[in-house]
Amino acid sequence: MATSKTIRRLEVVSPVPADIDIANSTSALHISDIADELGLSADHYDLYGRHKAKVLLSVLDQFEESPDGYYVVVGGITPTPLGEGKSTTTVGLCQALGAFLDKKVVTCLRQPSQGPTFGIKGGAAGGGYSQVIPMDEFNLHLTGDIHAITAANNLLAAAIDTRIFHEASQSDKALFNRLCPANKEGKRSFANVMFRRLKKLGISKTNPDELTPEEIKRFARLDIDPDSITWRRVMDVNDRFLRKITIGQGPEEKGMTRETAFDISVASEIMAVLALTTSLADMRERLGRMVIGNSRAGEPITADDLGVGGALTVLMKDAINPTLMQTLEGTPVLVHAGPFANIAHGNSSVVADKIALKLVGKGGFVVTEAGFGADIGTEKFMNIKCRYSGLTPQCAIIVATIRALKMHGGGPEVVAGKPLDHAYLSENVGLVEAGCVNLVRHICNTRAYGVNVVVAINKFASDSEAEMNVVRNAALAAGAFDAVVCTHHTHGGKGAVDLGIAVQRACENQTQSLNFLYPLDFSIKEKIEAIAKSYGASGVEYSEQAEKQIEMYTNQGFSNLPICMAKTQYSFSHVPSQKGAPEGFVLPIRDVRASIGAGFIYPLVGTMSTMPGLPTRPCFFEIDIDIATGKVLGLS
Amino acid sequence: MATSKTIRRLEVVSPVPADIDIANSTSALHISDIADELGLSADHYDLYGRHKAKVLLSVLDQFEESPDGYYVVVGGITPTPLGEGKSTTTVGLCQALGAFLDKKVVTCLRQPSQGPTFGIKGGAAGGGYSQVIPMDEFNLHLTGDIHAITAANNLLAAAIDTRIFHEASQSDKALFNRLCPANKEGKRSFANVMFRRLKKLGISKTNPDELTPEEIKRFARLDIDPDSITWRRVMDVNDRFLRKITIGQGPEEKGMTRETAFDISVASEIMAVLALTTSLADMRERLGRMVIGNSRAGEPITADDLGVGGALTVLMKDAINPTLMQTLEGTPVLVHAGPFANIAHGNSSVVADKIALKLVGKGGFVVTEAGFGADIGTEKFMNIKCRYSGLTPQCAIIVATIRALKMHGGGPEVVAGKPLDHAYLSENVGLVEAGCVNLVRHICNTRAYGVNVVVAINKFASDSEAEMNVVRNAALAAGAFDAVVCTHHTHGGKGAVDLGIAVQRACENQTQSLNFLYPLDFSIKEKIEAIAKSYGASGVEYSEQAEKQIEMYTNQGFSNLPICMAKTQYSFSHVPSQKGAPEGFVLPIRDVRASIGAGFIYPLVGTMSTMPGLPTRPCFFEIDIDIATGKVLGLS
Repeated sequence: MATSKTIRRLEVVSPVPADIDIANSTSALHISDIADELGLSADHYDLYGRHKAKVLLSVLDQFEESPDGYYVVVGGITPTPLGEGKSTTTVGLCQALGAFLDKKVVTCLRQPSQGPTFGIKGGAAGGGYSQVIPMDEFNLHLTGDIHAITAANNLLAAAIDTRIFHEASQSDKALFNRLCPANKEGKRSFANVMFRRLKKLGISKTNPDELTPEEIKRFARLDIDPDSITWRRVMDVNDRFLRKITIGQGPEEKGMTRETAFDISVASEIMAVLALTTSLADMRERLGRMVIGNSRAGEPITADDLGVGGALTVLMKDAINPTLMQTLEGTPVLVHAGPFANIAHGNSSVVADKIALKLVGKGGFVVTEAGFGADIGTEKFMNIKCRYSGLTPQCAIIVATIRALKMHGGGPEVVAGKPLDHAYLSENVGLVEAGCVNLVRHICNTRAYGVNVVVAINKFASDSEAEMNVVRNAALAAGAFDAVVCTHHTHGGKGAVDLGIAVQRACENQTQSLNFLYPLDFSIKEKIEAIAKSYGASGVEYSEQAEKQIEMYTNQGFSNLPICMAKTQYSFSHVPSQKGAPEGFVLPIRDVRASIGAGFIYPLVGTMSTMPGLPTRPCFFEIDIDIATGKVLGLS
Repeated sequence: MATSKTIRRLEVVSPVPADIDIANSTSALHISDIADELGLSADHYDLYGRHKAKVLLSVLDQFEESPDGYYVVVGGITPTPLGEGKSTTTVGLCQALGAFLDKKVVTCLRQPSQGPTFGIKGGAAGGGYSQVIPMDEFNLHLTGDIHAITAANNLLAAAIDTRIFHEASQSDKALFNRLCPANKEGKRSFANVMFRRLKKLGISKTNPDELTPEEIKRFARLDIDPDSITWRRVMDVNDRFLRKITIGQGPEEKGMTRETAFDISVASEIMAVLALTTSLADMRERLGRMVIGNSRAGEPITADDLGVGGALTVLMKDAINPTLMQTLEGTPVLVHAGPFANIAHGNSSVVADKIALKLVGKGGFVVTEAGFGADIGTEKFMNIKCRYSGLTPQCAIIVATIRALKMHGGGPEVVAGKPLDHAYLSENVGLVEAGCVNLVRHICNTRAYGVNVVVAINKFASDSEAEMNVVRNAALAAGAFDAVVCTHHTHGGKGAVDLGIAVQRACENQTQSLNFLYPLDFSIKEKIEAIAKSYGASGVEYSEQAEKQIEMYTNQGFSNLPICMAKTQYSFSHVPSQKGAPEGFVLPIRDVRASIGAGFIYPLVGTMSTMPGLPTRPCFFEIDIDIATGKVLGLS
């Protein structure tokens, strides 16, 4: 069928073997073959070993005039703690489109965090016969983007504490003389980055010697309020003992101790910047305007005020290029960026999607996943990611499982690591019927953006035809364009052919333009309330702290940013146990924070953990190397 | 002259432009051309972009039967704080051998730490017309080896604190049940890595259910003494505020706070392991046996006791492959590992040298640099690195400058960042003559290993012929094989042709075998004293703490390891201001520590900083990206 030279047919085995065994049983193609098939010439990408390549951003200039392909986003219903197979469906759909329906297709995925691979979670390359390979390279190091983020994030952190330290011990003049030292000829000059701060201060002088003492003070003394610092250090390791620490306890730091914390690297604002940036020039600006805290006078202090925006960009200059990999069936994948889905927007990068849309061209498909349930993932995809990218999806998929719908219909609690209740393993049409309220709300919310919605029913062995019929009917009644059962986990792309056909029809029949949920010129509160309404909330309640922060960000001129809600994915509401489609609740906003460089305000609905821990028996016990073959063992 | 296809001729300009300008004015060849010229086929290496490739360790199997080339180590006299051009000489010599003397040659260099690039120090790719290019790729990220070290080091750190935490809150039985959980059929099994601990404990049972309560306790409870933990977290950033910190202050960690610190990543023992390992299997063993502290009963606790040795190896599996780059004149360079030269042995990797020796083959040259002055760098090269590798150098170079010799002869203090005293800028034969005592002692010490010594006089513009004659004569009188003036900084390889010829003769005329300074079966103190004697010390003085540690390591069975002295490089003695060739001093050993996985004991002579800081005006102010070209600006 397929005319692509890179397509591989899978020989599937039943029952489905372990993910790593499936991944290891297939030998991946050299990535240059995949690149070639995509129409990339050798100067469009840099190889990183045999199975990964970084596609250079310059491709966008070259293909500027080419038409985009269809743009498909994959969201899901409110999941159980086991996950409902969104990544797997994303990969499986692409295997179907590329390997069976003869379409040009690119899968756009997030890069997973390395730390949790050694904890409980395991990898994130899809599963069963719908995976990205090689699995170990996907989950570990990849092409170093997260390591670059760690380095950049922590350079900025070191710059903050060191600057406070140096300011504390020096007069204005001494500080200024050190910041702008005289050269051999006794002449001073500003570093280029300093003109950004001068401009912000309204000082147009270009010769340091001409600054008045007052100007010197304003320029040289950032006067950072230590209590206002929101920038934390990061590490891509599950290290719970870094959740709260005191730094600066060495004798040389002269008692300037400070309480702070480490987050896991993917929680860094720099990850969100990488995901939302549109070009090298845009990334330079975003990194420079990241706000790390306030001066004692309440002015936001940025990375460029600290003089480090350029260095951060240099550290990130290769990370901006997406990484090309492949699926089990030889279709291309772009892996790029993996921001948190609560305190950030949880979507892979804008640049990867843009490049992919050009590479597949007219009639081709780009399928991109949005983290968490559609209430969060798809909402942020539309209102944040598409707003910044200017791209418009034609189709939104909502992945549903009978298991999760039963939970929403009142089934017993589903707990990771514990055996599933009988209700989930045998037919129970009633529970499914009752649970469809969750799916229906996701469909209605998603349709409101003006896209065609296709429901993908990710079938498990125990699901019955009657149960699936209930879901199909409910979906169509709610206005879904189609609702299709798929078995890509068991069968690879072949199991998602019907889904592929439905998606193709949905894209070809899409006529509306993208409607955002709120305009940017709404106030922060109006925007929060628009999103809360989509959750089913009857209102919003703000803590004193949240009120204070909203006022501060508004005064600082940041109220025109989109909103990125930090909420649980386990319910439409803020209470994880409220399944189905809760209504009438009041959404409490505990605090409000901002990622100014990335470009959003994030209200906190509850407490979000940004540093996971390790259990007594972490995954790392199983992970080792086969000395003879060099293969990775025990990765799950 | 040269038959190599990759050789480029430099067009040198006077005065010598800035390093970055020279580096940017040359367009590097595609690294596959360099690899091809070295006799590597495409399956011998993995590309990392266009200018870097990782040479796979499997090359060693393929070339097993090939003869080695000549092995040359570059050390230096006791340096001024400005450095005397050891890296530059290493690169310049190779450019001479490859581009002018038509020899097969590989330069083996350490990977520099990224953190200091943004602080004061700048890069480490050589200088002037003797550099490794592209300079920005050499100094930043490279192929991710240091990032892998950071990840592995910190995974181990997280495993330590988490294990203590979980042990504190669980009974022996609960702990054991979590470590060896029952599967669906109710059957328990040990993870493979657990058999290492069982073996250490003398338990030969393979079924967890058969362990006695006493065995369960011994197996499951590591009982780590928090005060004994020597393993620290690392970060490749100059972050002085992490020199002393308190961790575990979050409410979920239940008051289990602990004082600890971050080192810069290259100070990690894992870096030393990478530098000294000889194969993937050997690295697995070394990583597993790294000691992180003691149990309360005084038993050493290893990474494998924590179950994480395999995972660390997986994180390091690509890092074990050296990175191929090129010099300005198109000769090949292997960059690999960069351990500290005080608390570690300061030499690039054994595997890179081994691969290089095979690739250049009979009559070819491998030139490798040893960090710090020859008292430390060359000594550790011989007694630690060559002992583990089994390799024998034919020639040792000692780099000398007129500037440093004048300092040793009684010249005024040389301070980085301050103008040089007049004595250093005009002829002063007397100072040079007096300073030669330093050079002479380095020559005598180095000759004692049984190698031919060639002195490389790294000429500066202000050095006079009379001054250089003094050095030549003193060197030859002290038994140097030759002493040669070189001007590679100004002229590239052409300026080191005489040095190249001398090195070739020295290698061809080498007949002795390698004599170590001490046998491994000496006691720890005997070994320390042998090294101290080579410094000119009349004796050694041990602190109470040092005595205690020596006794502990001896009792733990580690006394047969080589010694890695952590001493200043600015004097033969422990006092940096004692220039020349001090004698009769007593060397004080403040403390004694060990890197058991890497394989050495390191006595501390004074305090070693393992985390640099940032000045008020760090290098990062100048570093930015040219948005139009993507080029890095301001890197020095």
